[in-house]
Amino acid sequence: MKLTILGCYSATPRTITNPTSQIIEINNQMFLIDCGEGTQVQLRKHKIKFSRINHIFISHLHGDHFYGLVGLISTFMLLNRQNDLHVYGPKGIKEVILLQLRLSNSFTGYGLYFHELTSKESQVVYEDDKVKVSTIPLQHRVYTNGFLFQEKPGDRKLNLGAVFNYEIDKCYYQKIKNGSDITLDDGRIIPNEKLTFDPTPTQSYAFCSDTKYDESIIPLIENVDVLYHESTFLEQDKDKTTHTMHATAIEAATIAKKANVGTLVLGHYSTRYGNIKLFKEEAKTVFENVLLGDDGKVFEFNK
Amino acid sequence: MKLTILGCYSATPRTITNPTSQIIEINNQMFLIDCGEGTQVQLRKHKIKFSRINHIFISHLHGDHFYGLVGLISTFMLLNRQNDLHVYGPKGIKEVILLQLRLSNSFTGYGLYFHELTSKESQVVYEDDKVKVSTIPLQHRVYTNGFLFQEKPGDRKLNLGAVFNYEIDKCYYQKIKNGSDITLDDGRIIPNEKLTFDPTPTQSYAFCSDTKYDESIIPLIENVDVLYHESTFLEQDKDKTTHTMHATAIEAATIAKKANVGTLVLGHYSTRYGNIKLFKEEAKTVFENVLLGDDGKVFEFNK
Repeated sequence: MKLTILGCYSATPRTITNPTSQIIEINNQMFLIDCGEGTQVQLRKHKIKFSRINHIFISHLHGDHFYGLVGLISTFMLLNRQNDLHVYGPKGIKEVILLQLRLSNSFTGYGLYFHELTSKESQVVYEDDKVKVSTIPLQHRVYTNGFLFQEKPGDRKLNLGAVFNYEIDKCYYQKIKNGSDITLDDGRIIPNEKLTFDPTPTQSYAFCSDTKYDESIIPLIENVDVLYHESTFLEQDKDKTTHTMHATAIEAATIAKKANVGTLVLGHYSTRYGNIKLFKEEAKTVFENVLLGDDGKVFEFNK
Repeated sequence: MKLTILGCYSATPRTITNPTSQIIEINNQMFLIDCGEGTQVQLRKHKIKFSRINHIFISHLHGDHFYGLVGLISTFMLLNRQNDLHVYGPKGIKEVILLQLRLSNSFTGYGLYFHELTSKESQVVYEDDKVKVSTIPLQHRVYTNGFLFQEKPGDRKLNLGAVFNYEIDKCYYQKIKNGSDITLDDGRIIPNEKLTFDPTPTQSYAFCSDTKYDESIIPLIENVDVLYHESTFLEQDKDKTTHTMHATAIEAATIAKKANVGTLVLGHYSTRYGNIKLFKEEAKTVFENVLLGDDGKVFEFNK
């Protein structure tokens, strides 16, 4: 599992920082989460192939999370994209994108599908045989969802020594990998655990931005391997969290601890601070395994 | 008069080039023309004070000319701008900006005024005591205007030696600067030209992008000091101009020559070319005084 932070600062793009956007690669699938202004240039900088992006998840309709989407969709169009593109985001996202395409008399040559979200309960928004993506309803100033990416377990791994030993025919291998026991010609039943090893452990990633401190998300993100949780403010500005409905680094760490996650990645820093290392320092007073997200950082996670 | 090119490449923003946006400073007034994605970052790079931008002119609603506008408007909002902001552009621009602000539950604390354009005839869209701005209707795939910025002549300059010599009272100075003759106490009439010098010569700037080659604009831009005319293609790709309704460098130079302009600035280059110097070379075969626009270039023009 690989996380590429294209941008992780709040509010306005600057010469040195970018608004929210990131790529999560899980089970060889690539997903774009949020798309602030300038995301397409960040994708180019990181040499991420546009053709690998087929699913874009937008948390909410504040500009720093989606003003780059229409430009990316237009660029895909200019580059003669053929693959379908699926966009998941709050109701309204379809209207605003299509209005802009209509005003420019432009139409995508590829299939552009909007999956508009309105539910305040968690729901599965994408699923294939390798990955499942669900929403994490968040508490912010506008309707907002985080997203939970869960790798699905693959086949069990064949214990080749054992299957040779029992002289099991190849035609049963897939059945065994699917978990079945095997009855030999002499009537003996060989239980599956003698013929296989456990599959590669699955991984999971939860993206939670933007949100105030909200313990109601804990059941949804419990035990995830990696949690990206916004930390807009340092403790000195905790009073600003109520009005803005953002969180502090310590609050992010508290959620990480209570949800028993593997690793916490911080981000969505207010641009008022000179030194983002303080976010990590504060978070580590509550939860040990903290990574400091920053534009351009790539994190690889293995089990 | 000072022209700052924030971006002058067509189609998609890239790591090394930006879509159209520029600042023209004329008679100490600053105007932003077009606002492709990333313009706000380009403005910061060039240390242009956001508070000096009060009038934004949008040529047309193709993404590479206005996808950065909503972000700039939002950033002004986050920075607690107080001054009114006026946006001039094709009908539809108000709907698309306000829809995005509404979806993010955001409202500007400053006055945001849209001046929507629909006329296919040239019209004055802005005027004060120093500058006049008129549209230049252009021929492109969607409704498009160029913009003509004309400095207004200031007062005539007082010939101090002469007014002392005739012992003219100070209370007449403004009248003289306005061009009046003066009758002395002894009845002699002193013609204004004996009491004043000509005012500082005025300058003018015409922005013409995007457009196909179109001689009908010549009467509107005749004798301007500086013409920015799009040159999307080199001569080798002239066949692409018909369908795309863009111009070549030679076509831009031909318009400059026929309109007898002072200086031609090229821009809106297709990103298919490796070396933009060829645009200048081709244009110079038709018109001598050519400048090669490029992102980050600042041109000062004096008479």
